[in-house]
Amino acid sequence: MLEVLDHIGLFAFAISGMLTAANRNLDILGGYIIAFITALGGGTIRDLLLNVDIAWMTSLSQLLVVIGGATIGMIFRKKLRSWRRTLSIFDTVGISVFTIVGVQKGLSHDALAITAVFLGMITATFGGLLRDVLCNEIPLIFKKEIYAIPCLLGGTFYLLGDYFGQGDTTWLLWSSMIFIIAFRTLAVLFSWKLPLIREFK
Amino acid sequence: MLEVLDHIGLFAFAISGMLTAANRNLDILGGYIIAFITALGGGTIRDLLLNVDIAWMTSLSQLLVVIGGATIGMIFRKKLRSWRRTLSIFDTVGISVFTIVGVQKGLSHDALAITAVFLGMITATFGGLLRDVLCNEIPLIFKKEIYAIPCLLGGTFYLLGDYFGQGDTTWLLWSSMIFIIAFRTLAVLFSWKLPLIREFK
Amino acid sequence: MLEVLDHIGLFAFAISGMLTAANRNLDILGGYIIAFITALGGGTIRDLLLNVDIAWMTSLSQLLVVIGGATIGMIFRKKLRSWRRTLSIFDTVGISVFTIVGVQKGLSHDALAITAVFLGMITATFGGLLRDVLCNEIPLIFKKEIYAIPCLLGGTFYLLGDYFGQGDTTWLLWSSMIFIIAFRTLAVLFSWKLPLIREFK
Repeated sequence: MLEVLDHIGLFAFAISGMLTAANRNLDILGGYIIAFITALGGGTIRDLLLNVDIAWMTSLSQLLVVIGGATIGMIFRKKLRSWRRTLSIFDTVGISVFTIVGVQKGLSHDALAITAVFLGMITATFGGLLRDVLCNEIPLIFKKEIYAIPCLLGGTFYLLGDYFGQGDTTWLLWSSMIFIIAFRTLAVLFSWKLPLIREFK
Repeated sequence: MLEVLDHIGLFAFAISGMLTAANRNLDILGGYIIAFITALGGGTIRDLLLNVDIAWMTSLSQLLVVIGGATIGMIFRKKLRSWRRTLSIFDTVGISVFTIVGVQKGLSHDALAITAVFLGMITATFGGLLRDVLCNEIPLIFKKEIYAIPCLLGGTFYLLGDYFGQGDTTWLLWSSMIFIIAFRTLAVLFSWKLPLIREFK
Repeated sequence: MLEVLDHIGLFAFAISGMLTAANRNLDILGGYIIAFITALGGGTIRDLLLNVDIAWMTSLSQLLVVIGGATIGMIFRKKLRSWRRTLSIFDTVGISVFTIVGVQKGLSHDALAITAVFLGMITATFGGLLRDVLCNEIPLIFKKEIYAIPCLLGGTFYLLGDYFGQGDTTWLLWSSMIFIIAFRTLAVLFSWKLPLIREFK
């Protein structure tokens, strides 16, 4: 189940990478490279930090899903722009799954609680961060939207559930993900923003 | 043999890093750092992804070749600009060797076929990608030239040869490299470009 | 002792990351992420290159010090700008400790002498380099100031001392760090600059 959702997240992130690359006037191969880095970059950094084998290196299905998402992003890029809201749903599902996968993987390697939550956020958001750095933009997660906060809170929620012995239950997985999806969706609908540093106090 | 060619590639990439740094008005130490990252960055990312020890960390000869290339790049930077075509030959030899080294290393660690080809391309091109990101430019391989495509095709060619049992033969090594060199040279001579994403269809 | 100084360095680097983020108009979470990357990025790259476990992943005290430094940077950002000189002292102590920690860690994993010195410099300066790349600026260490040179020379000094059998002595630790601090302070006071590449010869 989690694996199916994980592939949906990879698919949505690959599309988002290809669309960003199209906006920056990259060539086709550049688009595929950005799609790969957007979809797989967060998990790669997580695995490097955990000093374990990189997950996608041995997963043909992950690679094929990314290639598929990027190809669909390229072919249907005009339609996808008008479907932006639909796409945003995929992307939101993506960050919710990636967060939980990251926290779980951290816990299964005996990471500190705080580190496990960070790993969840990193899995969900650092692919997009690499995409923005490579496209020579200030990363989106630093500036505009409530994007990483739902991951941090949802990851903490999952962690607490795990601490109280519910770690492998289906309801905890689903409620954590629904928490992230709901929070993110509300943030988009109501244009919630984090305060800038200079606005603090 | 492959090792000699590998050092030629490192040498050419170190020069190219120093020349880029000079164009961006960096100081001397900045030039050396960019030269190191250009020459060794691709192999470093490959080894991180494979979760094996980083090759150059224990290779004094690789480090000295990079220092030598960067120094020569700094001293002769004006002459080297007029010799640009000569330099481009070194660089082309460099990507051809780096690609094959990367594919071989992937295969020897039992990577998937598609992953091994990616590792070849990453070895050959991600040093230049890091160079461009650090110099605050959109990476060259995303925009202008046929640069990574010969690596992908040449790596696939090598892989097929390996699959048919020719993996350690001299002729396969040479024909793969000559394929990459020829393709890249033709692309430069005839200004072949990849289509941009927005030009697709 | 070294551990206390290491935490002072982390604290100063976290403040510096938050102040840079404030200047770039990032939001609060972006400020914390930049603070983490500035403080922990150099050590992370060092540990990745050594293929060992990342130090901060299992160190609650390091994480708390970074969170504390970033929070203080955010709250007192106006005062801290007028205290810039004081802050620069922390930062200078930081690079001196980070350099020695990096060289020691390299030696304890049997790195080459030259690689150990590089690891010292990387530990001290690559967190700031990542900070600048993420904020879409050309890294400071490439352009403006004598910043990495004291690390390279101080690291070499420590290495020579270690070679002559003084590796674990208190005086070598202190004299290496004081060397770095003094060199860096003189460079700031007298505005020493490295020549640009194009000024060479």
